[in-house]
Amino acid sequence: MARTMKRLTDDERRAALASLHGWIETEGRDAITRRFAFRDFSEAWGFMSRVALVAERMDHHPEWFNVYRTVEVTLSTHDAGGLTEKDVALAKAMDAIAGI
Amino acid sequence: MARTMKRLTDDERRAALASLHGWIETEGRDAITRRFAFRDFSEAWGFMSRVALVAERMDHHPEWFNVYRTVEVTLSTHDAGGLTEKDVALAKAMDAIAGI
Repeated sequence: MARTMKRLTDDERRAALASLHGWIETEGRDAITRRFAFRDFSEAWGFMSRVALVAERMDHHPEWFNVYRTVEVTLSTHDAGGLTEKDVALAKAMDAIAGI
Repeated sequence: MARTMKRLTDDERRAALASLHGWIETEGRDAITRRFAFRDFSEAWGFMSRVALVAERMDHHPEWFNVYRTVEVTLSTHDAGGLTEKDVALAKAMDAIAGI
């Protein structure tokens, strides 16, 4: 547990971002952000519902903003005060669910 | 349809806000906002899931931001460029689902 709660080093962060799709560093925070766009609310909600189950299982939850067919996600680990492996794992799961 | 898409007058807006619980006018926009707080993510997600079904049935969707156990909602009618009866109806449904 302690291992996964360590903030990523610069090298680890670079490697993580390279392994993800469309995620960028969040401005002004030690976090990562991605904007997902879907066909409509139904498709966006389907994505969010699947992610909600993963998040609950991981006990690691996103900050996310939804308007109709778009979902903007920010990931950071509150207890660690920044980006950790947990965020990278959740981002990867989101990429997979979004089909990218 | 045209009737429900008309922006509320000042009197209608005042009456609407008085009939709702905890909603305030959104700063800098013709919209209303409420912050809901739940026990945990599971309860927040349960609320959002029930609201998602209502929103889809109404074909009127919220702007909402969720972090763990909190859900911040903003309602406005895009096509009307401001607050309409549709927003008040959705806000009332959210109040009912949240149990307040």
